[in-house]
Amino acid sequence: MEKILNFERAEFDARVAAVKTEMAKRGIDIFLVSEPPNLNYLTGYNAYSFYTPQMAIVALKHAEPIFVTRFMDTTSAKITTYLADDNIRGIPDEYMNSTTLSAYDFMAGVVKELGGEKAKIGVEMGGYYYSARAHADLVRALPLANFVDADLLVNWIRLVKSQAELSFMRQAGCVADAMVERAVDIAEPGVRECDVAAAVYHQQISGTPEFGGSYDSSCLHLCVGERALAPHSAWTDKPLPASTIINFEVHGLRHRYQVNLSRTISIGKPSPAYQKFSEIAIEALNAGLESVRPGRTCSEVFGAFSQVLARHGIQKNERIGYPTGIGYPPSVAERTASLRKGDKTVLQPGMCFHMMTGLWLDDRSITITQPFAVTEGGHEDLTTTPRILFVK
Amino acid sequence: MEKILNFERAEFDARVAAVKTEMAKRGIDIFLVSEPPNLNYLTGYNAYSFYTPQMAIVALKHAEPIFVTRFMDTTSAKITTYLADDNIRGIPDEYMNSTTLSAYDFMAGVVKELGGEKAKIGVEMGGYYYSARAHADLVRALPLANFVDADLLVNWIRLVKSQAELSFMRQAGCVADAMVERAVDIAEPGVRECDVAAAVYHQQISGTPEFGGSYDSSCLHLCVGERALAPHSAWTDKPLPASTIINFEVHGLRHRYQVNLSRTISIGKPSPAYQKFSEIAIEALNAGLESVRPGRTCSEVFGAFSQVLARHGIQKNERIGYPTGIGYPPSVAERTASLRKGDKTVLQPGMCFHMMTGLWLDDRSITITQPFAVTEGGHEDLTTTPRILFVK
Repeated sequence: MEKILNFERAEFDARVAAVKTEMAKRGIDIFLVSEPPNLNYLTGYNAYSFYTPQMAIVALKHAEPIFVTRFMDTTSAKITTYLADDNIRGIPDEYMNSTTLSAYDFMAGVVKELGGEKAKIGVEMGGYYYSARAHADLVRALPLANFVDADLLVNWIRLVKSQAELSFMRQAGCVADAMVERAVDIAEPGVRECDVAAAVYHQQISGTPEFGGSYDSSCLHLCVGERALAPHSAWTDKPLPASTIINFEVHGLRHRYQVNLSRTISIGKPSPAYQKFSEIAIEALNAGLESVRPGRTCSEVFGAFSQVLARHGIQKNERIGYPTGIGYPPSVAERTASLRKGDKTVLQPGMCFHMMTGLWLDDRSITITQPFAVTEGGHEDLTTTPRILFVK
Repeated sequence: MEKILNFERAEFDARVAAVKTEMAKRGIDIFLVSEPPNLNYLTGYNAYSFYTPQMAIVALKHAEPIFVTRFMDTTSAKITTYLADDNIRGIPDEYMNSTTLSAYDFMAGVVKELGGEKAKIGVEMGGYYYSARAHADLVRALPLANFVDADLLVNWIRLVKSQAELSFMRQAGCVADAMVERAVDIAEPGVRECDVAAAVYHQQISGTPEFGGSYDSSCLHLCVGERALAPHSAWTDKPLPASTIINFEVHGLRHRYQVNLSRTISIGKPSPAYQKFSEIAIEALNAGLESVRPGRTCSEVFGAFSQVLARHGIQKNERIGYPTGIGYPPSVAERTASLRKGDKTVLQPGMCFHMMTGLWLDDRSITITQPFAVTEGGHEDLTTTPRILFVK
């Protein structure tokens, strides 16, 4: 069967080596990786099967990770991973949604095969795909093992992107630009909100003439009128009125690498006060971006941004950014660094963030944002959409 | 702010009452509901915010659920739930992705306010949005409480749909039909796989001229050629060849109610052997459907289906169906009944299933399926797409 691998084998090997180095530092013998982006990062695996139990089992004493998934999905594992067939294991279907069998007993069986009955075992305690029951079942199945929380161990390594990853991020940025262009193009009074959303989704999946896109790790946020005061509300069937505000966030994807980008569209001429509000938001965003360089902390970037807002009497306490990279539902955010007050993470070249400087005040809101990569000299915008309030 | 509620208040009240009745039976005082479909079912809440901690706290002694979410998402709660403002609580942003604060301490605070320090507390141990860490944090914050697993308590209640829910399922079925039609229409040699996918997504979100659609709780499965042997592989950028098999599964949505539907397209004339294979698959599907009626068990339906396959020398061990209804990523399946051998769940009018009779053999595969509702007299198809192999 033809393999689909988006990176050189050497790059996968370097990723696994970095994880093993960190495991060794922490004395972890075996690491049960459950987060889908981490599975993709370490093995290449890409299929929509994470709603059933699956894990990459990384053992210091075993060269390759062992990928364990539902039996029917081992075909996808053979196509999308570099792993030897023996390192791909299928869980029989009777373990799925069973009231008597636990797929984590099957996982524990692989751990035992690796001699891990008394091992120090890392698990991703705060992951989306490591439920309270998964943990309870594993602890029951491996009573002599010592479980430790290794949540975010892989995520922190993923924070700095390689050149190959950056090229996919740039492609994802192209898709995000095309999505914003499509939204601005189609948003007119009388057009149903769902039809604006549909056009944006079409662009997301179609991508560009050179390369295709992929499904979202979140959903399009398309917040119209009153609902623009809420950051994550859903679209409706209603036609757009003659005058309103639309805040929207699109997600461009390439080989699961995701770039987020938000803009605001004013349908009808905005009031002078709103126009001024947009200028303040853009000034603050630009100040934040200009402050980005290696050696600075996330907190310092937040400071440069919030200083501008403060000068205009606006306070924002929420974080103004998060890292993106490989994304699977429900979220692309890497759960590591945050661009916010007090975050001492030091910026390094190759880190990619969405500077999400949305402002949601009591009576007005705006979402003009910028995804960027940290470079040697400062930052590189990952999209080219102008940082303006679009008026239609 | 204008409310968006898709059901009468009485229907929400009946749902909460049913949950409280079951809680009382099990001696549960307070139920911490974390699964997004269950939050939607009990409160109406609909926004893409489940990637951060949120819960509906249902207490026997408190009339309405208390909905706790990130502060910025309380606006969406005010728009999409019937809850009194005092029953909507915002978690301050410093709890998000914090290394020092846990949002579950905030949840525990609400439990204490309800007098629940020593309560019997139900949690959804096997839920997608109840991580091992969430549980550990809650147990630490409420050391005198008695935690019990109440996973699927709401899901089992959701299994039987009301008339109002069934009407949304029928609308979701219309969207699914339109999606299949669009796929069959656009799939031609030379068209990029991603462009077929894009057209299907466009239809999913646009819906019909009468009503709009919504985002997927999963993703389009579009499995071409060799990848058709894998159930959940992703599309590529490649143009469709002159002759190939496409297995695809679409998801029609209406107000978060989701109907799944699969078909197979043969690009180019299928071989006589493949044509025969498709006829067997359809014969088995029809036998399964005809066996559906109230009083029968899921296992009996599986038996009617697999008997036909066995007669043709094909064995299928995987379950052939799962219930659908309210869906949020990563999955619509309700994790309760399964149409499979040994499942003793008795069918009742109002239950909705996707009879997912995909066959993935070593060298050929086909996915012709049927979503249906159980009725007094048998079943009602939720879609009208003919059960045939499409040939282009």
